[in-house]
Amino acid sequence: MFPVSDIRDLGRHEADGAAVRGWVQTTRVHGRVAFVVVRDGTGIVQCVVVQKEVSPDLWQLVQELTLECSVIVAGAVRADARAPGGFEMSVQQLTLVGASEDYPIQPKEHGVDFLLDHRHLWLRSSQQRAIMRVRSEVEQAIHDFFHQRNFVRIDTPILTGSIGEGGAGLFPVDYFEEQAYLAQTGQLYGEAAAAAFGRIYCFGPTFRAEKSKTRRHLTEFWMVEPEVAWNDSEDNIRLQEDFVSYIVERALERCRDELETLERDIAPLERVKPPFPRLDYSEAIRILQEKGHEIKWGDDLGAPDETVLAEGFDRPVFIVNYPKEAKAFYMKENPDDPRTVLCDDLLAPEGYGEIIGGSQREDDHDRLLARIREQGLPEESYTWYLELRKYGTFPHSGFGLGLERTVAWITGRPHIREMIPFPRMLNRLYP
Amino acid sequence: MFPVSDIRDLGRHEADGAAVRGWVQTTRVHGRVAFVVVRDGTGIVQCVVVQKEVSPDLWQLVQELTLECSVIVAGAVRADARAPGGFEMSVQQLTLVGASEDYPIQPKEHGVDFLLDHRHLWLRSSQQRAIMRVRSEVEQAIHDFFHQRNFVRIDTPILTGSIGEGGAGLFPVDYFEEQAYLAQTGQLYGEAAAAAFGRIYCFGPTFRAEKSKTRRHLTEFWMVEPEVAWNDSEDNIRLQEDFVSYIVERALERCRDELETLERDIAPLERVKPPFPRLDYSEAIRILQEKGHEIKWGDDLGAPDETVLAEGFDRPVFIVNYPKEAKAFYMKENPDDPRTVLCDDLLAPEGYGEIIGGSQREDDHDRLLARIREQGLPEESYTWYLELRKYGTFPHSGFGLGLERTVAWITGRPHIREMIPFPRMLNRLYP
Repeated sequence: MFPVSDIRDLGRHEADGAAVRGWVQTTRVHGRVAFVVVRDGTGIVQCVVVQKEVSPDLWQLVQELTLECSVIVAGAVRADARAPGGFEMSVQQLTLVGASEDYPIQPKEHGVDFLLDHRHLWLRSSQQRAIMRVRSEVEQAIHDFFHQRNFVRIDTPILTGSIGEGGAGLFPVDYFEEQAYLAQTGQLYGEAAAAAFGRIYCFGPTFRAEKSKTRRHLTEFWMVEPEVAWNDSEDNIRLQEDFVSYIVERALERCRDELETLERDIAPLERVKPPFPRLDYSEAIRILQEKGHEIKWGDDLGAPDETVLAEGFDRPVFIVNYPKEAKAFYMKENPDDPRTVLCDDLLAPEGYGEIIGGSQREDDHDRLLARIREQGLPEESYTWYLELRKYGTFPHSGFGLGLERTVAWITGRPHIREMIPFPRMLNRLYP
Repeated sequence: MFPVSDIRDLGRHEADGAAVRGWVQTTRVHGRVAFVVVRDGTGIVQCVVVQKEVSPDLWQLVQELTLECSVIVAGAVRADARAPGGFEMSVQQLTLVGASEDYPIQPKEHGVDFLLDHRHLWLRSSQQRAIMRVRSEVEQAIHDFFHQRNFVRIDTPILTGSIGEGGAGLFPVDYFEEQAYLAQTGQLYGEAAAAAFGRIYCFGPTFRAEKSKTRRHLTEFWMVEPEVAWNDSEDNIRLQEDFVSYIVERALERCRDELETLERDIAPLERVKPPFPRLDYSEAIRILQEKGHEIKWGDDLGAPDETVLAEGFDRPVFIVNYPKEAKAFYMKENPDDPRTVLCDDLLAPEGYGEIIGGSQREDDHDRLLARIREQGLPEESYTWYLELRKYGTFPHSGFGLGLERTVAWITGRPHIREMIPFPRMLNRLYP
């Protein structure tokens, strides 16, 4: 009996051998020697079967192994720098657990729709696994960052009345006799909690019923949204710098192998350290106009504008103080230029575009109410939100970082649909 | 200028004094001395104002402070064991930031509907804050437990086709031209990911459109669901013991003050260590019948049954191997008694009822398909799920722990509606 081991831990079993349990990634037969690469989720190991050392039945079984069949393999273990994973197993026992006939994803080019239709299997491929591991590590980094700084995690509701940001579409839900909508943001709830706990964050799925089919849109995506009492816009920007730098550093520290699998050039990530450069919105418009973009003061920035602005910098860049009309109702007016609000968008370098939107919040009851009315939002849904300005109002700021866009930038991949285990897009609810 | 400090860190400012920013919890005036307790989310501090030491304006302002107005208070700091929070501030400066007239929640009894209608403010009260801090710490413990054990976090989708557990109701969502439903569980998606990563977990909101109005039901609640390749039911039960013990230990370690605020007797929590006792379902039925419960073999257990069964034990107890009919379609048949399945429910002690449901999963394609048909589930929605049994099927097990029920148990509170920042129940979508 060989002791069962994760592939990652095979180094502990050079003396006694081991059994590993996993899925067949590749098989190659060279005359009387066969090489079977097995994956178990913790690593991969090359298993070598020598015909004269095993029974005829086992040798026969090896010939019949197919892509993604599940197996238990046991034998002697030795380090081998040339072997994928760094260890090689000399197979003495082999059990086929689950066959795999005509596995749909073969080692050839498949169209993206085909791959998305088979997402439940596509996740097993090495690049997709690397992406998901980076995502998982980034998520842990997010929690650790806030936990270490004594933020209270507050899970904001998904099912809401018609309260939201305005703008992007809402998904309606039949909620017993009422009409509910899926939350576009947790921020408004986070503001209520900031008065109880000082510093809070939420991190969960958010929903936008936008008919966009760009490579930067999902209908369901994850967003982390801290909210901090007494922070002004300046404090808010510093928190963003620290936060983004922390996440990138963790990925570099813990996901080297994954970034290598993805052929990510890590030099640009190593430059991500505070402070980040800042551009005033008006300055950004001037630069874009000089470069021939058709844009005028007052417009929101589009993806091509963001790419051009970010090009001039070797780390993420803040665009600050947008015109009121281009932004959500809850942002605080800029006292130095009342046409604008105290806000920032953070653009990732290398053309990855906006990963954060942040702002100081309007803390004056009457101004906030006026903005809600100006934007034609359903006033009665915002009653409780307005009450936060009636009972001990306070300066506060926060931001939202889009997880999938951030992971796309860190992993160096163009499409955010690969950044979430089961992407939801226009026309895609399956699997 | 006094340096700004969190109340938690006042101990660092005994030499130089400090300014704190927060909300007024109580005020008391005794002749020429006033006591104002301020909360900032990190702690509370008693601020002492002596009439002869301050300006007439400041003294006047103190008289006008009301519940939950926001203030900045500054002055000398000294340790005082009698003061709530352990420090006292001798006030030299006081600024009223946001008034608070007729704050709705006064220090008297309010009905629960009133409090839930004012949940955005109720969160500021000391017991509710204590509960949310325990919840937040438990959530971090959940992530740390799995991260330390090399589980990959997989965020499963909220918007799904009609795939689910069957049984409890689904919330329908208008998804462009299609019909979507809010996910009841991430498990089925987690099973797909387990074949890629070996050990995974998801942790997010789940939805049940049940018209239940019990103290143990929410329509939106958080669930953590690990799924482990190659684990059998026995391994699964051991993982649950370790997991639950870890969470409870962390709460005891990091949330002493909060548990004290909630007047939680921690002695029963200190006994939560593996192994946990186990009762076979058939044995449980025999015990219940002996105690006069109207229950027969084949029935699912109700809340009163669970309470009686848990009474006999000083730590959580597993009920294992329920009848097939009482449980979901995906559970694996028990080879020793094919009327039953390889599953467990974990009942918390002290009458808190079920906090976990777990099982080994049916890994045989044809048996699984037969179960889907027997239960009349929409077969086409399960195509991809069945494919997991066609391409390298593997024994695997997992479980789901309900966060709010677990926090209710740890904090010793009867109603799970207080365990989530903004509860969603039948007839409750606001705030």
